[in-house]
Amino acid sequence: ASESNLIRATLFPGDGIGPEIAESVKEVFRAADVPIEWEEHYVGLDIDPRTQSFLTWESLESVRRNKVGLKGPMATPIGKGHRSLNLTLRKELNLYANVRPCYSLPGYKTRYDDVDLVTIRENTEGEYSGLEHQVVRGVVESLKIITRQASLRVAEYAFLYAKTHGRQRVSAIHKANIMQKTDGLFLKCCREVAEKYPEITYEEVVIDNCCMMLVKNPALFDVLVMPNLYGDIISDLCAGLIGGLGLTPSCNIGEGGIALAEAVHGSAPDIAGKNLANPTALLLSAVTMLRHLELHDKAERIQDAILNTIAEGKYRTADLGGSSSTSDFTKAICDHL
Amino acid sequence: ASESNLIRATLFPGDGIGPEIAESVKEVFRAADVPIEWEEHYVGLDIDPRTQSFLTWESLESVRRNKVGLKGPMATPIGKGHRSLNLTLRKELNLYANVRPCYSLPGYKTRYDDVDLVTIRENTEGEYSGLEHQVVRGVVESLKIITRQASLRVAEYAFLYAKTHGRQRVSAIHKANIMQKTDGLFLKCCREVAEKYPEITYEEVVIDNCCMMLVKNPALFDVLVMPNLYGDIISDLCAGLIGGLGLTPSCNIGEGGIALAEAVHGSAPDIAGKNLANPTALLLSAVTMLRHLELHDKAERIQDAILNTIAEGKYRTADLGGSSSTSDFTKAICDHL
Ligand SMILES: CC(C)[C@H](C(=O)O)[C@@H](O)C(=O)O
Ligand SMILES: CC(C)[C@H](C(=O)O)[C@@H](O)C(=O)O
Repeated sequence: ASESNLIRATLFPGDGIGPEIAESVKEVFRAADVPIEWEEHYVGLDIDPRTQSFLTWESLESVRRNKVGLKGPMATPIGKGHRSLNLTLRKELNLYANVRPCYSLPGYKTRYDDVDLVTIRENTEGEYSGLEHQVVRGVVESLKIITRQASLRVAEYAFLYAKTHGRQRVSAIHKANIMQKTDGLFLKCCREVAEKYPEITYEEVVIDNCCMMLVKNPALFDVLVMPNLYGDIISDLCAGLIGGLGLTPSCNIGEGGIALAEAVHGSAPDIAGKNLANPTALLLSAVTMLRHLELHDKAERIQDAILNTIAEGKYRTADLGGSSSTSDFTKAICDHL
Repeated sequence: ASESNLIRATLFPGDGIGPEIAESVKEVFRAADVPIEWEEHYVGLDIDPRTQSFLTWESLESVRRNKVGLKGPMATPIGKGHRSLNLTLRKELNLYANVRPCYSLPGYKTRYDDVDLVTIRENTEGEYSGLEHQVVRGVVESLKIITRQASLRVAEYAFLYAKTHGRQRVSAIHKANIMQKTDGLFLKCCREVAEKYPEITYEEVVIDNCCMMLVKNPALFDVLVMPNLYGDIISDLCAGLIGGLGLTPSCNIGEGGIALAEAVHGSAPDIAGKNLANPTALLLSAVTMLRHLELHDKAERIQDAILNTIAEGKYRTADLGGSSSTSDFTKAICDHL
């Protein structure tokens, strides 16, 4: 790729194992000749001690300008008054939808071998409003906020995603039998959008029943769309079905066409710097970024190389029962390209 | 058992398949010579059309007087203004804890064979407050209420349960990283109670992580205690691990020592009256009622008979892949006594 064709993308390697797994992505992208130039910013604990800041204005501006980025795990700064950096990024960049494709990895055995679904989580409101107070001593309340605007926005995204990804069905997950007004509004918005997509089957599933169905027969689901907290719960549940957060990609969609892909696992400080981390979640997240950029050939090639390396089983990191280093696993993927 | 030794217990057979599976319990109790005299009340859709009531004062009084009861499934009356009867009973009888033992059934194969845990759900507040309103057009809010009183009460119950049932560990499930005040108060109460039980290991697990761990390795858990909505979600998830709501017992604990055991599955109107329903969940719920009454020998004998019948596999209802009728399955259990 010639200089002028390069797409600029922001990279936040993050904390702990972040830099190592980000290195892995850079290597694989280089080997696959992906026309991306990284604009790297340090966000997280590792920041310049003089500023005492964990998140610079330049980092945010970089994502806003490039409209596409990749982030590694970020630890929440310890001490009072610090929100999770993940939440701050969601808020500042208005990342309204968190998209997590979740599929069984060929050759990596769990109790399930037929998972192939996508969770789409409203990412800005609901139980995450941050509005809480003590009413009287011993009585506290939290506000769950649902708006028509945010619900329509995530529903639109879910149906568009289903359509453009050849998916057949969208299930809206809710508890409107209890929260008739809030979850009721969410469902109403989903129904409105569903009408515009007659080719896609629409259904509504109560969250408790959804979780039961997911563990009994995840193949029943295709695309799931839901308010923030249910999305938090169900996306992790689904990750568990196929092996855990170390294997599942994630991408956040923001206003104005921003896509910030991210590995949602932790920063694993215990193994940081030891060349032991599994870069799969960040690599597969980078693949969702490529798809967002419509670099489908590159995305396909890299995804195949990752999945084939895992399926072959010769090179696996310790969390998958192997003994490969991060760099050997990465090299194996590059060899599969 | 002589007349004078009989314990009076309330029975709400419920709707749909309720009467058939309640009949099954009565038969098994008779065969096992359980010293219980049922006081039967019809609550649900099947009520006298002249009163237009779904729930009589006498039914509530019966539970309050007997302090022990068993309920079948109840359909929610159709039409505006009707709350779920389940919720009404919880409220009226102040049923503050919902207890669901969940264990793999020997011989009934699912993807999991090592589940043995108990979920204890706060049953009166949280997201079930019923407090919701529209703030402005397109913006609605629900209140989640957590009180010190209800949190301490359910935590006390959970630790007492763990102690009296020989369980080693209590995990409090929460999302206090987001809802610091509400779930924070819940955790604070759990910690206070935990201090009084040094022999029981106490841990705190974030709900999303809990769901992931449950599907990966449910054997990690023992007793789980949590606010209302998380309990709703996790208890159904756990039921899914071992085969579904048709197999899991449940018991509600109320103020003043009330115990109302219940089958939490639906009323299955499609198969009602056809002698096809699986009475297992109601039977096992009746067993939890016997344990509450400290009739441990009877409880053990009946539970063994149920589990052995299922394990043997000769008599199973259709939902478990067999072709037995409700009454043949019931008879098989009686034969195993
Ligand atoms: C770390 C935490 C605040 C976050 C969330 O609850 O959203 C995490 O669980 C996630 O899913 O990204
Ligand atoms: C039917 C419904 C209102 C109820 C609940 O949400 O509590 C049910 O799911 C349960 O778990 O008993």
